[in-house]
Amino acid sequence: MTSRRFTENQEIILDDSKQSLSKDGSLIIQNPHLKSLSSDNLYHLAIGTETHDLPALFGDVKFVCVGGTLKRMKSFAQYMANQLNIEFDHKDWTQASHRYNMFKIGPVLSVTHGMGISSLSILLHELIKLVYYAKCTNVIFLRIGTCGGIGVDQGTVIITEKAVDGLLRPFYELYILGKVVQRPSICDNELVSELKSIAAQEISGFRVVSGTTLCALDFYESQARLDGAFCNITEEEKNNYLYQLQDAGV
Amino acid sequence: MTSRRFTENQEIILDDSKQSLSKDGSLIIQNPHLKSLSSDNLYHLAIGTETHDLPALFGDVKFVCVGGTLKRMKSFAQYMANQLNIEFDHKDWTQASHRYNMFKIGPVLSVTHGMGISSLSILLHELIKLVYYAKCTNVIFLRIGTCGGIGVDQGTVIITEKAVDGLLRPFYELYILGKVVQRPSICDNELVSELKSIAAQEISGFRVVSGTTLCALDFYESQARLDGAFCNITEEEKNNYLYQLQDAGV
Repeated sequence: MTSRRFTENQEIILDDSKQSLSKDGSLIIQNPHLKSLSSDNLYHLAIGTETHDLPALFGDVKFVCVGGTLKRMKSFAQYMANQLNIEFDHKDWTQASHRYNMFKIGPVLSVTHGMGISSLSILLHELIKLVYYAKCTNVIFLRIGTCGGIGVDQGTVIITEKAVDGLLRPFYELYILGKVVQRPSICDNELVSELKSIAAQEISGFRVVSGTTLCALDFYESQARLDGAFCNITEEEKNNYLYQLQDAGV
Repeated sequence: MTSRRFTENQEIILDDSKQSLSKDGSLIIQNPHLKSLSSDNLYHLAIGTETHDLPALFGDVKFVCVGGTLKRMKSFAQYMANQLNIEFDHKDWTQASHRYNMFKIGPVLSVTHGMGISSLSILLHELIKLVYYAKCTNVIFLRIGTCGGIGVDQGTVIITEKAVDGLLRPFYELYILGKVVQRPSICDNELVSELKSIAAQEISGFRVVSGTTLCALDFYESQARLDGAFCNITEEEKNNYLYQLQDAGV
């Protein structure tokens, strides 16, 4: 049974503080508490400031590439090793965590993030701290993965230039201390342009476009699929929604 | 920088439809579209109605137990095998999916769910469909895992009798077709009582209590931790929040 009601007014906090870089390209971290820690254990990576010499091991990292599964990120690591002419040692730096998998190929980290925003969020907190403690400079974070495409041919590569949530809002919304906090989901426009121009020069055989990506909360219902265990929408409602998304540039 | 604003009124749909059982204990599935599918591929389990004889393979399942990591759910499978005096064959039924891991020990499935609500949600959609297609009867779903405890000793086992989100609402909120949908997060009270009475009879050496569990959206900020890559709360605000939660029975 479905009934409807309207919410009371809810206070929402818009937090647009950004991770920013020092003059030398190192990260200025957005957490004042970290400076007072005598050591920091990146629990879900099984890597720590006390157990690992992070600047020596990871100080040369320039690209952090994340994606869903071990199979995919191992293939990517192998591909990068071939491209960079580096031997791929298959060492999984986070094996002891039983959570993620992380390979290092010269300046590139290839890391699995599992499924969903929560899993990716834990990983990003710890990877950002990793490059901070390792004193890496000018690091680029990229997610490489599959997505549904609306109004484009299968196999098209889409570079996200804008990310929105399931209500088409350009925010990552989370609850902190029982309050709604919205963080703007901003992509690096310069990086998007650079990726597009590289694609135009280097890639033939499939289309590369840039566009808006909708970041759904789950795989079945939030993505309007009709084949989950629960579903109370019709095929027509689904199609109308997809046309709406297409009109909105998703 | 942090600024504040108030939302416009937002329509919210309360959907309290439930998975329910037939007289014989089999599942009445809440998705009318499934009946018209000629086959169904449980993609993230790499199990399908066309490739597997689900009633023959899984028809005897009575307990579906889910938890975070492979290490943990393999240990649980081994424990169940010992308890039930069944040889544990270590067969991972979902290996081909590269997503989850699933072991079967007689009537018990032990399945990894990864981290976060999205990952668990995908798994539950597919496990509910699995027991439906396999024509299992009277199946009990249990999550076994760690959680933070507020106001209880470390090592206390907590049986969730009520689950709330980060705003202390007893809902699982998701966005479907661009609308906010709230599903009540209801636990089976009879099962909670039964688990408590079994614990009272069988378990000594650590405390078993029942209570409210807060299901946070992430590990760092939503759980008021001070050691993430981002943090703009103080130790005092964190402590006040934890006292508030304790007062609210979490």
